[in-house]
Formats: sequence, structure tokens, C-alpha cells
Amino acid sequence: MQKPIIILVRPQLGENIGTAARAMLNFGLNQMRLVSPRDGWPNPDAGPAASGADEVLANAEVFGSVADAVADCAHVYATTVRKRGMYKDVVTPEQAATQSMARPGRTAILFGAEATGLDNAEIVRAQSIITVPVNAAFSSLNLAQAVILCAYEWSRHDATLLQHEGLDEAAPQEEVDGLVTQLNDALEPAGFFRTETRAPVARQTVRNLFTRVGYTSQEIRTLRGIVSALTKPRRPEAQDQAK
Amino acid sequence: MQKPIIILVRPQLGENIGTAARAMLNFGLNQMRLVSPRDGWPNPDAGPAASGADEVLANAEVFGSVADAVADCAHVYATTVRKRGMYKDVVTPEQAATQSMARPGRTAILFGAEATGLDNAEIVRAQSIITVPVNAAFSSLNLAQAVILCAYEWSRHDATLLQHEGLDEAAPQEEVDGLVTQLNDALEPAGFFRTETRAPVARQTVRNLFTRVGYTSQEIRTLRGIVSALTKPRRPEAQDQAK
Repeated sequence: MQKPIIILVRPQLGENIGTAARAMLNFGLNQMRLVSPRDGWPNPDAGPAASGADEVLANAEVFGSVADAVADCAHVYATTVRKRGMYKDVVTPEQAATQSMARPGRTAILFGAEATGLDNAEIVRAQSIITVPVNAAFSSLNLAQAVILCAYEWSRHDATLLQHEGLDEAAPQEEVDGLVTQLNDALEPAGFFRTETRAPVARQTVRNLFTRVGYTSQEIRTLRGIVSALTKPRRPEAQDQAK
Repeated sequence: MQKPIIILVRPQLGENIGTAARAMLNFGLNQMRLVSPRDGWPNPDAGPAASGADEVLANAEVFGSVADAVADCAHVYATTVRKRGMYKDVVTPEQAATQSMARPGRTAILFGAEATGLDNAEIVRAQSIITVPVNAAFSSLNLAQAVILCAYEWSRHDATLLQHEGLDEAAPQEEVDGLVTQLNDALEPAGFFRTETRAPVARQTVRNLFTRVGYTSQEIRTLRGIVSALTKPRRPEAQDQAK
């Protein structure tokens, strides 16, 4: 069982990166990834705030996009409290921990920027949403608090012997990405994204259809075969039948 | 069931008192007590750090000793990670939450000063010790982190606070069936099921791709729109682009 990777997306303050590292290591998590940290990396404010969790910062990897940061991950969770017009499973930190422990493949958890959280184009890269069940009248977790609750839940269940459910491993996200790109390239000339204004939403919808499932590599290959079959130049008689 | 009272013993920084208040209110706890805060009370650094949890600070009560602060409480827990030469029950935050919910009477949880924690004369006022099960190789929770984990465990077991947000309803199987039929009708002339012997298995594979997900009616409509877009007769220039 692999430990989850904590991905901070566009973090603003180095101090918060350090506090998040401290939160992680208390519960044995040591793999941090940073997507476009606002003030670059390394950041001199991170170390003092990490209170000794230096190994987490030293090994942190920097990426230019969420897509790149999750490319090798089979299971991706996005933490967000806001309602989104997006159809995804919503789970608690505890459910996320038990779910991902029961499945093979690497897990990543995305945390958004301090002020703005994750945007929709980032959330759509995740299979599921983690929402901490907070007080409806006061919901104001800071970045490290959100991180520590997810890390805590992971470690709380780590001791427990959880059975594999016999699920095949979900494909890494780069394979999902290849499918979505192929499909978009086929839908574009077919006029699927025809109205300029709705196109970005339609693209997110298409991505979400295939991201939230957790398809295996074999399934992704089959889906790509389907798209290829549907888009290959047709012989006249085949075209007739398709009408 | 009464919510636990969070007691900060000799807290040093006003900022940490504010962050603790913020941590508490996220999980519906609003009763804070302060024992001999180093810089007096109120403390101007507390408010900004509370990020809106002002009601917790406004209602905080100040006491001169732990004995006075717990005088009206039936159950008292002391949070500490260090080994003490003191015979007491040691529980996790989760066990403390479930225990105290099952018993009538008011519960208090003591948190020590940032630098030094609780001293033995303070711990002896508690019936039990709460120890967060942290990484043996790195154990460095700050005050608000210790508070948030205890508050979180309380609310996690308090059914009234939990608001589980489930998935939208999955489409009835006849809609899945419509999609699969449409897709098969398009794949047939494209030669996807070309080898006679493998065709039944391939059909099952295609069906399973869309059955196992639990797509909503809206998602099924989008997928049908995708198949339609990919299979509609193409204009010559579109056909060129698709090659």
C-alpha cells in the first residue's frame, strides 16, 4: 500500500507549505508535490514553519500543471468545500482513506490555493471530491488544517488490516489524458464544441465523464479503440449503415 | 449531550488562541476556557488569527488555575504526547469522543502551553490522557493542530453535525441500454466486432465499460451526444481533419 501524495496547487505562502509539511510528517506522509507555487521554490519561509519536517520539503517536487502532477497517479482526490456544478462522488477524509487503501495504485490528494481553492479545471482532474464535514455555520479550514485531517485519517486506518477487494489497478492519469485528448481531437471537427461560449464547460464535462470512473489501462485501451473505430474514414456502404 | 469545553492552559501567543478558536468552530465547538494566558486577556493578536470565529473568543472564560477551570466538569482529559510517570488511562482522540458522548456530564479537554505542554500537577487533574497517535519518528503537533484533531473527532461522531453529500441518482438501466445499443450500432459498420469468435466478449466489454460506472441520466445523454457527433456523416473537410 502506497502512501498518498499531497499536492499543493498554486500555494501562496511559503509558511503554509512548511506547516503543511509538518502536518504531513506527523502522520507519516512524506511525499509532497507543488503545482506552480506563487513565490517559486525553494521558499525561505517554508523551512522554519516546518518545525523539523525538512525531509518533506527537501523531496518536494514542482510541476507546472495539475495534469503533470497527477500523471502517474491512479486515484486523485480534490479537496473542496464549495458546491460545484460537477458530478463527482463526494467523500469524507475517512472514506477517502479507506477507499484508497483498499485499491492498488498511487493516490494523490489535491489542495487548492489559500485564498481561492481549486478551480473547476483542476477539480475535473480528480475522480472524487473530499469534503471535510465541517460546521455548516462556520467553515474555515486553513490549508495545513485540511492537510492534517486527511493525513490523520490515513494514518488512523493504516494500522488496520484492510482487504483488497480484487479490483484491478486504475490507470495512471496520463492514460486518461491520452483518451480525453484523442476524443477531443475527434469531437472538434465533428462540431461538438461548436458554440464558442459553452465549449470550455463542454470540454470539462467530457473530461469528467472519463476521469471520475477509475478505468483500468485495459479499459482505456478499449475506449480508445472505440473512438478510433468511430472516427476512421468510412467506406461508402458503412457510411450508409451509420445513417 | 454537551459539547466538550476546550481549555488552553498558560497559552503563550494570542495568535495560537485565535487559531485554536478557528479550529474549534469548524467542528461546532464554541466553549473555550483560558488558564493564566501569558499575555493577559483579551489579546489583540487572537482576533485576526480566528478568521471569523469571534464568538468563541468573545465568550472565552479566564481562570487562575486548572482546578478552577475544570471545577464544573464531570470528565477531564489531558492532551500530552510525553511519557509521564503517572498511572492513567491513555486514549486516542476518537476514543475520548465516543467515551464522553456515552456519558452524561460536561467534558473538558486540557491543552498545555506551546513550548512546555501540561505539567504533572495539571495532568493529575484529568481522569484520562489523550495522545494523538503520531509518527514515532516525527511528533510535532502545534497547539491548534492538537485542538483541531480532538474537535474533529468529536464532530465526526456527532451525527447531528455530519452532512453526507451523496451522489446524484444513477440513470435507470434502460438508459444505459440505449447508449450501449447506439454504440454497438455504430461500431458494427465500423468493423469493431470483426472477428466472429471474439465478438461476444467484445460486446460484453463495451457494455461493462458503461454499466459499471453508475452514470447519471445527464451523463448518458452527453455520451450519446458524443457517439452521435462521432458517427454523423462528415463533410469532406471534416473527414480530412479526422485522418
